[in-house]
Amino acid sequence: MKFKPLSDKIPKMLHGADYNPEQWEKYPEVLAEDIRLMKLAKCNVMSVGIFSWTKLEPEEGKFTFEWMDQLLDTFHENGIYAFLATPTGARPAWMSEKYPEVLRVGADRVRNLHGLRHNHCYTSPVYREKTEIMNTKLAERYADHPAVIGWHVSNEYGGECHCDYCQDAFRNWLKEKYQSLDALNHAWWTTFWSHTYTSWSQVESPAPQGETMVHGLNLDWKRFVTDQTLDFYRHELKPLKSVEPKLPATANFMETFEGLNYAKFADDIDFISWDSYPTWHDQGDESYRAAYTAMNHDWFRSLKDGQPFFLMESTPSLTNWQPISKLKKPGMHVLSSLQAVAHGSDSVQYFQWRKSRGSSEKFHGAVVDHVGHENTRVFKEVGELGEGLSKLDEIVGTTVDAEVAIIFDTENRWAVKDAQGPRNIGVHYERTVTEHYQAFWEQGIAVDVIDSEKDLSKYRLVIAPMLYMVRDGVGESIEKFVENGGNFVATYWSGIVNETDLCFIDGFPGPLRKTLGVWSEEIDGLYDGEVNTIKAVGNNSFGLHGEFEAKELCDLIHLEGAEALATYGDDFYAGRPALTLNHFGKGKAYYIASRNDHAFNQAFFTKLADELELKRAIDGPLPKHVSAQVRTDGKTDFLFLMNFSNQAQEIKLNGEYQDILSGNTVKDSISLEGFAVSIFKK
Amino acid sequence: MKFKPLSDKIPKMLHGADYNPEQWEKYPEVLAEDIRLMKLAKCNVMSVGIFSWTKLEPEEGKFTFEWMDQLLDTFHENGIYAFLATPTGARPAWMSEKYPEVLRVGADRVRNLHGLRHNHCYTSPVYREKTEIMNTKLAERYADHPAVIGWHVSNEYGGECHCDYCQDAFRNWLKEKYQSLDALNHAWWTTFWSHTYTSWSQVESPAPQGETMVHGLNLDWKRFVTDQTLDFYRHELKPLKSVEPKLPATANFMETFEGLNYAKFADDIDFISWDSYPTWHDQGDESYRAAYTAMNHDWFRSLKDGQPFFLMESTPSLTNWQPISKLKKPGMHVLSSLQAVAHGSDSVQYFQWRKSRGSSEKFHGAVVDHVGHENTRVFKEVGELGEGLSKLDEIVGTTVDAEVAIIFDTENRWAVKDAQGPRNIGVHYERTVTEHYQAFWEQGIAVDVIDSEKDLSKYRLVIAPMLYMVRDGVGESIEKFVENGGNFVATYWSGIVNETDLCFIDGFPGPLRKTLGVWSEEIDGLYDGEVNTIKAVGNNSFGLHGEFEAKELCDLIHLEGAEALATYGDDFYAGRPALTLNHFGKGKAYYIASRNDHAFNQAFFTKLADELELKRAIDGPLPKHVSAQVRTDGKTDFLFLMNFSNQAQEIKLNGEYQDILSGNTVKDSISLEGFAVSIFKK
Amino acid sequence: MKFKPLSDKIPKMLHGADYNPEQWEKYPEVLAEDIRLMKLAKCNVMSVGIFSWTKLEPEEGKFTFEWMDQLLDTFHENGIYAFLATPTGARPAWMSEKYPEVLRVGADRVRNLHGLRHNHCYTSPVYREKTEIMNTKLAERYADHPAVIGWHVSNEYGGECHCDYCQDAFRNWLKEKYQSLDALNHAWWTTFWSHTYTSWSQVESPAPQGETMVHGLNLDWKRFVTDQTLDFYRHELKPLKSVEPKLPATANFMETFEGLNYAKFADDIDFISWDSYPTWHDQGDESYRAAYTAMNHDWFRSLKDGQPFFLMESTPSLTNWQPISKLKKPGMHVLSSLQAVAHGSDSVQYFQWRKSRGSSEKFHGAVVDHVGHENTRVFKEVGELGEGLSKLDEIVGTTVDAEVAIIFDTENRWAVKDAQGPRNIGVHYERTVTEHYQAFWEQGIAVDVIDSEKDLSKYRLVIAPMLYMVRDGVGESIEKFVENGGNFVATYWSGIVNETDLCFIDGFPGPLRKTLGVWSEEIDGLYDGEVNTIKAVGNNSFGLHGEFEAKELCDLIHLEGAEALATYGDDFYAGRPALTLNHFGKGKAYYIASRNDHAFNQAFFTKLADELELKRAIDGPLPKHVSAQVRTDGKTDFLFLMNFSNQAQEIKLNGEYQDILSGNTVKDSISLEGFAVSIFKK
Repeated sequence: MKFKPLSDKIPKMLHGADYNPEQWEKYPEVLAEDIRLMKLAKCNVMSVGIFSWTKLEPEEGKFTFEWMDQLLDTFHENGIYAFLATPTGARPAWMSEKYPEVLRVGADRVRNLHGLRHNHCYTSPVYREKTEIMNTKLAERYADHPAVIGWHVSNEYGGECHCDYCQDAFRNWLKEKYQSLDALNHAWWTTFWSHTYTSWSQVESPAPQGETMVHGLNLDWKRFVTDQTLDFYRHELKPLKSVEPKLPATANFMETFEGLNYAKFADDIDFISWDSYPTWHDQGDESYRAAYTAMNHDWFRSLKDGQPFFLMESTPSLTNWQPISKLKKPGMHVLSSLQAVAHGSDSVQYFQWRKSRGSSEKFHGAVVDHVGHENTRVFKEVGELGEGLSKLDEIVGTTVDAEVAIIFDTENRWAVKDAQGPRNIGVHYERTVTEHYQAFWEQGIAVDVIDSEKDLSKYRLVIAPMLYMVRDGVGESIEKFVENGGNFVATYWSGIVNETDLCFIDGFPGPLRKTLGVWSEEIDGLYDGEVNTIKAVGNNSFGLHGEFEAKELCDLIHLEGAEALATYGDDFYAGRPALTLNHFGKGKAYYIASRNDHAFNQAFFTKLADELELKRAIDGPLPKHVSAQVRTDGKTDFLFLMNFSNQAQEIKLNGEYQDILSGNTVKDSISLEGFAVSIFKK
Repeated sequence: MKFKPLSDKIPKMLHGADYNPEQWEKYPEVLAEDIRLMKLAKCNVMSVGIFSWTKLEPEEGKFTFEWMDQLLDTFHENGIYAFLATPTGARPAWMSEKYPEVLRVGADRVRNLHGLRHNHCYTSPVYREKTEIMNTKLAERYADHPAVIGWHVSNEYGGECHCDYCQDAFRNWLKEKYQSLDALNHAWWTTFWSHTYTSWSQVESPAPQGETMVHGLNLDWKRFVTDQTLDFYRHELKPLKSVEPKLPATANFMETFEGLNYAKFADDIDFISWDSYPTWHDQGDESYRAAYTAMNHDWFRSLKDGQPFFLMESTPSLTNWQPISKLKKPGMHVLSSLQAVAHGSDSVQYFQWRKSRGSSEKFHGAVVDHVGHENTRVFKEVGELGEGLSKLDEIVGTTVDAEVAIIFDTENRWAVKDAQGPRNIGVHYERTVTEHYQAFWEQGIAVDVIDSEKDLSKYRLVIAPMLYMVRDGVGESIEKFVENGGNFVATYWSGIVNETDLCFIDGFPGPLRKTLGVWSEEIDGLYDGEVNTIKAVGNNSFGLHGEFEAKELCDLIHLEGAEALATYGDDFYAGRPALTLNHFGKGKAYYIASRNDHAFNQAFFTKLADELELKRAIDGPLPKHVSAQVRTDGKTDFLFLMNFSNQAQEIKLNGEYQDILSGNTVKDSISLEGFAVSIFKK
Repeated sequence: MKFKPLSDKIPKMLHGADYNPEQWEKYPEVLAEDIRLMKLAKCNVMSVGIFSWTKLEPEEGKFTFEWMDQLLDTFHENGIYAFLATPTGARPAWMSEKYPEVLRVGADRVRNLHGLRHNHCYTSPVYREKTEIMNTKLAERYADHPAVIGWHVSNEYGGECHCDYCQDAFRNWLKEKYQSLDALNHAWWTTFWSHTYTSWSQVESPAPQGETMVHGLNLDWKRFVTDQTLDFYRHELKPLKSVEPKLPATANFMETFEGLNYAKFADDIDFISWDSYPTWHDQGDESYRAAYTAMNHDWFRSLKDGQPFFLMESTPSLTNWQPISKLKKPGMHVLSSLQAVAHGSDSVQYFQWRKSRGSSEKFHGAVVDHVGHENTRVFKEVGELGEGLSKLDEIVGTTVDAEVAIIFDTENRWAVKDAQGPRNIGVHYERTVTEHYQAFWEQGIAVDVIDSEKDLSKYRLVIAPMLYMVRDGVGESIEKFVENGGNFVATYWSGIVNETDLCFIDGFPGPLRKTLGVWSEEIDGLYDGEVNTIKAVGNNSFGLHGEFEAKELCDLIHLEGAEALATYGDDFYAGRPALTLNHFGKGKAYYIASRNDHAFNQAFFTKLADELELKRAIDGPLPKHVSAQVRTDGKTDFLFLMNFSNQAQEIKLNGEYQDILSGNTVKDSISLEGFAVSIFKK
């Protein structure tokens, strides 16, 4: 299957950056020079208007669009396209001064002063009104501008407000959800510590000096924040769409961002975009970091079922806000950018085009440095990438065809991390999901990263690491998936609570107990540094061999139809099952009872992939730190080979291939330089 | 001496848990099932009504006691008894909403929102009025109920309030104590930094944005908090006692809790109870952890001069609020429960009977797990313990007869930790006291753990680790104790300040200088990892040998009549006295000038115990990690042998003994399995 | 050149302490005893009246000067002099109670409660009025008192206030500076994140719940705090000077204090004084600690161009507020006190004379301990020092003659630490400056430590470590200095921003690019533990040899006329220049591109000192941990040899010298005991 390009105006890989020429108003030579440099770097798209509210409306009701007119016209004259932003990511000081209600109130119930960004109440009638006026004017003026190819709505939505408007909205949201206080009290188990609410007005959002421990409240508050933010997005969208319904809109998302459940946005967002800032060359494991980044790409691609996403922000060099501002080593910029493409991106964009002279992000990497000219290492690598992207027109609209899905569920994430016990010093949900993902990444097996409520029927294998919360329907969905021949892998600390964090009382893993054929009686927390072992059972039907290290969490289970593939080696539960397989319907369900080392994940999932004959990007094992990914339209495959180590790596191939980027032909094997990437059409 | 059982209704070891059936109102089958399981686990007592305010008074002035009537009647029909709680540990949301004054104000002067628990102002007239109404009704309805054997007043008192009511109460408390501002100004040395108060209204409680450094103020504030909490306890008690004065009452205390001076409560509390949650199987030293827990038991037993206390809460498995939720290994539940009994408890009770389905403590260990049935490891061990406890009727009312007392003084603890210098990175008062205690625990020597104002005359040996604060009368009491033949051990950083943290100006250790025969000129702070050595003086009269490590604090003293038993080995004070002995009257006073390693404590206190021929639970040395304790009525001794290691240990005994628990007879020696316990009647 | 003694009344080295007899009002014997002890310790000056406001004005408008009259008269009768303090370092509780506006408002906009000290708004009209009344009365009564030799204005000025008065004053300060909002908006680059101010009233001081990221705002706020504090100092001074203009005044400063730009105070302060509390004998490197302390002395001496400063506070023993209260080892008190003298101090003074009985600093080292008598080790060492100081009359008024200056610039410090990137986990400005300083300290080469705006023409060598901010005129001053034959050393991360934190857009290091002959394209941040190497280029013209370790920051530069003396050894920039030399005019300019190990600093700066034939205190190398410093009047040199190790050290000397302190004559070499000091007149 092949998706349409985002805009008919430019059916190509997009390459560009955030661009704020209004910062350079006093430097009139800058705009013309920037246009020259954009062309030189083969950039064809810019995101404009982000954080431009004061420039567009310097005083209440007085609008100054002339500079934007000129900017977009200049773009159009030069073959450059634009994502046009709504400026709600930061509001003008005059608005904060005149209408304090637009400023957020913190969980401590202290209202913010004007400052930073994202600092607006999404419920405030004034802020909504001002947004509506602004967005209407933008739409009326620019929706049909030939340079504009999409809406960049606000910027990196996030955060929450606890003002009285929001408290009221939250209470209404709860009334809608629960209908009665009695239902709410039961769902939140408020009898504990005598919390029973006897009036809706008693309900308040979590607060450090108030309630922090009613997990049902915490969860519903997070859900409300997502819904209210989504409602604000819809409010932004309405005037935009009323002028030109077909102009697509996005809201740029963030890496493993936890504050919003992005899955809820998927239907309302026309195309997914996200901002990626991996800490390349940090001191951790390079494969883990590359796999973690790949997982994020796959997560965002999976949000809209494989539709290409857009890498809306990245840095061509370093960031200035991470602990260390580390330069990308030669090659890494092209490599990391094309990694996004390999996983489904139809663009590579940066924050930002030109480094600002002052304020907080002036040292953030940009295409054009303070020195202002093109004679820099970074500019050259950006140009080299631009050249490469221009050869990839064919790949636009292709997608990734995955047989495997890993469940990375935001509500579960909220719940499992908010819970008290079994490991308050770190339950490590994200790391755990990533470690499972990495086992496939290392094999060149494509993976979708999905919410637990997604349809599973299209997959052959579904993995649900630590699925603590199993919402209504999810257990049934998994059961049916396995019954119909699917393969399912669950782990310890799964099937514990329902949608409002009430424990299942019919035996853990609750709705998964039948499918998995095990009962989890209790779970042991291990201290950091404390270990157990798990040993493969002799002649187990799965064919697993060897001994592995277990740590952090060890589930003590009873077999209820499942077979033990491995058992614990130590402590009082030595000999008890540590890994099980249950034949269920036409499928199989595996249970990993303990958190294990990476060697286990590699051994187990390689075995499983072999057994299921899962499609790999290339046959045979990949060298360490090398990733292989395929984009496809169902007919033609595009193979990306990427070397994330600083050493050359030899990769075996069957047959002869032509590298789209270099034009070189390789046969039987290819030697990839450190931080190099090749793309082959198959 | 033998104490009476707490209630004539049930002259047995108590076994039970906190029980909140009101959480399961929507699950009507639960109560009957719980009664069946209670009997199965040999439980005979439940604490009910804790956190039940909203269930008892769902709206102001509307009371719903029917469910409690039914609960207590059902208990009575089934031979189960109850500690009935006053519900003040958490108040209803309607009360917080209608009367914000019941909510605490933090030290930062921000009033709490409704949430968590313990969140009430103990001065608020409204809260006192509501409490009085509720407690009166409870007393009138239940004081004579056949199932009720005692009052469980509130829950784990703690915390403080800085509202205007409390500020006024604090000022009145100060006026009462000091009579004049002039006296207060001198006691707090307010001339420093020009703090002199010229009006009572200028005095305010400590605040992060206000005063934090006037230590006399800090101390008096803590004393006020204790007194005001005690006053609130008396306020709770009054209506309870007016109906049935003989029904005993307790307020459950907490492990080494620092917020209240429990010694002040001893006279008003009819029986001591406390909540014990040791982190068994953590990565520390097992003997230290077991000794630390034992010390807590001894502290609570000593509060009321040996009267049996009640283990009001413990977990049959794990907690959910500690860093790691670690399962108790097989045996540990019986062992740790009987350790409480060995040290003077007449009960083993749990938080809680049945795991709640939701909210913050749903993963806290309980007798009945979410799965709801008895087929769990934990339930079986609880039943096994219930069986064991049922054999210990004879032990009820017996006590522990200690010749040794260690001073663990709460006001001193406040003061020595609040002081600036000599070791702001950790003066480690609690650890230091525990290390001294451990040296006796390892020898099977019974110890009382007492406040410095307690009568010392009944002891043969008194140890006062780091008695920084020596209040009026305490120096005299110690002097008299030694004069009359007592043995006294003091350490560095003792005798520094009086009751209001004013330094003694006649030479440290102040009121102890004469008794100890030394003058401390100055004290050296050592960095973590920095060490000195102390070496026994050749042919010293005490017979100490060897060389030990000193760390953290080294006192530089001059002999004033005392003999040096050991001297420093390093630094510019090498050769100066590090351990001294002073013959004073008919007794002896020892001064340990530096903080030393555990080998020193073992060598010194073993030597001292030998010299004094202190009673040991059994003759001869105990294996590492094994504890021996005796409960006695003065005629019959009950010997508890407890193995806190996971390895079997061989213990030598003289003669033949019968194990009350197993019925087995042992002769000359016993081999205790890992985490096993035996109880012998002598 | 020789400066006049501070007071004609006592042309001697001063020796004394803070003294607060008003704390001992209830102990009438203390004053007479203190006078006896002061004489015994050869103390000749006391600082009085610090924190005495409540004692001087116990209620509003009621003044009680009698005790101060008596105190000063008694001093005069006994040949003791006084620095008389204004009491504004802490205000009376009655003032806070009646006029809350005198209390500071925090950055979080919460007004402080009464407490601690320094807690006043420096803008408050009431506080200014009360200060004026008090200072006027003090001046009228005591300016001509024979015992008084100077004003000790307030105490350790510091901190900031965010109240409405201060917000208004800040806005006025900004209007004065920028004249227009347009200029301010450009200077702060407020278009970033749409921060443009459209009204002065929108500007607010930085706040945690408001603006933290506009670096120009942050910087100007710090500048305002300095200016407003200086304005308050002038306000304090006015009544004092109106009575007796010649009585000199100081405001005691603090070690590497960052809150105020002391350079701005130099003209208004008659004589510099500071409070020094090194953590002697901590676990770090002894030379680093001694050099760091020496650098502080040199910084304060350089503030007023070599005029002797006064060590206003130090401890004769330990502090009570550092992590560990460590005793000074024998000899260290004399050594560390004379180190101050070696670097230009004409006094050694303590906080405090007598330990207070209570409150927060009661355990701070003092001459007289709580025990109250002179028979202590500390008292004896103070007396020994007093004896030594009495032999140094000749040194009074002499200064230090430095050919080398190191730039330690407070505004640069603010800016480089406030910046985001390139190393948010630690850019280590102070440590970096100290490491450069230490290379000279180890060679016995005198150094001035100066602000970047100081006149450089008097120096032969100027070093500017990490001069991130180059304010207007500074680049020109350095260029001219080198052009005229000066030698200049700069490092990585220099010449990045101008006075308002706007980046230079003509290529880094901006205004230093021409002088240094290099262009810095980008800079790599290294993680802690990550290293590179730098290797001397064969046959480089400077004669540097060997290989060194680089870490933390590596600048990637291009030569623009400069010669590479060393190159990087690793990573993708191996072979690129790491150390350069540019011949410019008659001078030379060096650029150190990476942060290197101490071995590099030693090798490079020894080489440079040799090449320039810089004056050393003694010929030949000094043993490790030994410092040699010279004070001079231009004719006679006084050589201080100081051994900061605990081992005896042998130092070679040319010829015969007499030790002023011991009277001993040494020839050719001297053996200095551990922690010993000798002073020779040459």
